[in-house]
Amino acid sequence: MAILIDGKQLAQKVNAQTQQRAAELQDQGITPGIAVILVGDDPASQIYTRNKHRLAVQMGLKSDLYRFPTDVKQATVLGTIKELNADDDIDAIIVQEPLPDHLDAVTITNAIRPDKDVDGLHPSNLGKLFANQPGHYPVACTPRGIMRILAHYEVPLAGANVVIVGRSILVGKPLLALLNNANATVTMAGRHTQDLHQLTEQADILIVATGIAHFIGADAVKKGAVVIDVGMDRLPSGKLTGDVDFDAVEPLAKMITPVPGGVGPMTIASLMEQTVDLAEWRRNG
Amino acid sequence: MAILIDGKQLAQKVNAQTQQRAAELQDQGITPGIAVILVGDDPASQIYTRNKHRLAVQMGLKSDLYRFPTDVKQATVLGTIKELNADDDIDAIIVQEPLPDHLDAVTITNAIRPDKDVDGLHPSNLGKLFANQPGHYPVACTPRGIMRILAHYEVPLAGANVVIVGRSILVGKPLLALLNNANATVTMAGRHTQDLHQLTEQADILIVATGIAHFIGADAVKKGAVVIDVGMDRLPSGKLTGDVDFDAVEPLAKMITPVPGGVGPMTIASLMEQTVDLAEWRRNG
Repeated sequence: MAILIDGKQLAQKVNAQTQQRAAELQDQGITPGIAVILVGDDPASQIYTRNKHRLAVQMGLKSDLYRFPTDVKQATVLGTIKELNADDDIDAIIVQEPLPDHLDAVTITNAIRPDKDVDGLHPSNLGKLFANQPGHYPVACTPRGIMRILAHYEVPLAGANVVIVGRSILVGKPLLALLNNANATVTMAGRHTQDLHQLTEQADILIVATGIAHFIGADAVKKGAVVIDVGMDRLPSGKLTGDVDFDAVEPLAKMITPVPGGVGPMTIASLMEQTVDLAEWRRNG
Repeated sequence: MAILIDGKQLAQKVNAQTQQRAAELQDQGITPGIAVILVGDDPASQIYTRNKHRLAVQMGLKSDLYRFPTDVKQATVLGTIKELNADDDIDAIIVQEPLPDHLDAVTITNAIRPDKDVDGLHPSNLGKLFANQPGHYPVACTPRGIMRILAHYEVPLAGANVVIVGRSILVGKPLLALLNNANATVTMAGRHTQDLHQLTEQADILIVATGIAHFIGADAVKKGAVVIDVGMDRLPSGKLTGDVDFDAVEPLAKMITPVPGGVGPMTIASLMEQTVDLAEWRRNG
């Protein structure tokens, strides 16, 4: 029987701290502010955006939504980012992905002020993280949440054999950097990997972010592994599930995140926490 | 019997192309320029700097040396970088490592204009590489040279199992990003790694950059592996050698780099080539 990682409960703890810190800033006349840019009408993006807004308001943060039609011009989005970069009331800027094909996601990402880049996607922030530079800079919120989970559950990282399946810029790559900086031995794998199971079977910590329901079964997991499931997928039945076949893997694992209630709540809690961080960091130079 | 990777010969080929490109720029009135900042009197740094200068002149490049005593003030070094950043005749700025302890290497690295950062150490360049962003940006010269070797010797990268031993910002980390971008499955290992041999034994391509003479012996290498040795170490006898015990590993390997004459010549050839790249990129916007 694995220890069930309770991301929901840990997120509540983080959120309580964030709310407290936001209240303290409020006493100094500062309300940390998030601006979300949403293009088009992707249903999942609308749900994520609404959830972020609700939680931000609950935390005592200012939350503004900039909504654009699917055929918005790139110059319009860049113009809004420029205004938000200069707006002293805005501490965190999010451009909700996915963007329509006619918009250049790289140009848009690189236009965000690094010290307001709450998603940690700007090359300057990503480079500092990868180089393990000292100082304050934002880190993508899902990896930040996962590191918090691993710390809370006292999972040893130094010398641990970690396999990350999935190479996205929002999850796999920042996690690789964070775990590498924590002296884990990290392998980054993906669809291109040959003998993937042979690799994942050796992992002390297995992190899966493929977006493919039940991509990892019992045959791919070492007994006693810590299993972190970043997936949020639907089975043909419509049931929400993860990238890991939970029922099959749970008996093998030492610890495992459920879906929902594992990584998801920690991502959004980390976003709120980092918004408050950014408000403090920017004001303290 | 392994194929011996002839880095010297390949470097000559690259240098001939660089010389040709520099001559073509000269016809347009442009002489690509390198500025090297050297602090203190570390003997190895002096040799490296002299070798860079000699080759640069041979390539038809302008090469300036800024030499400071060990106790130079940080502000003086930063002031020189600021001038070089603004100097239109300088395309590539190198701050020779190691720096004395009283200088903050991170602040100094981050002060170099990203489009003159020929060592690829600026977080903005490192972040773009890690994110696999399109467009032109400099990459650290040893990793660039190794990628050229792997391409020249037609080593398949997609799906290959690569182990990199050593996590430095000049070698291991940019290599990880480059190989990850080439769809290899990359593990980054180091002194912290448990069961290192078990890991290296699985590598199709093994890249070693530890600075420890003969760190890798025959028991750590898979039969048929491609072995790239970044080391430049001295045996107690004073003899120059690598991180790999060449005599023991060579019979097992499919291909192997010698030390000297493997990676070393390709590092400096890549530096010259990238200086010409930077001259072209900056002038073409």
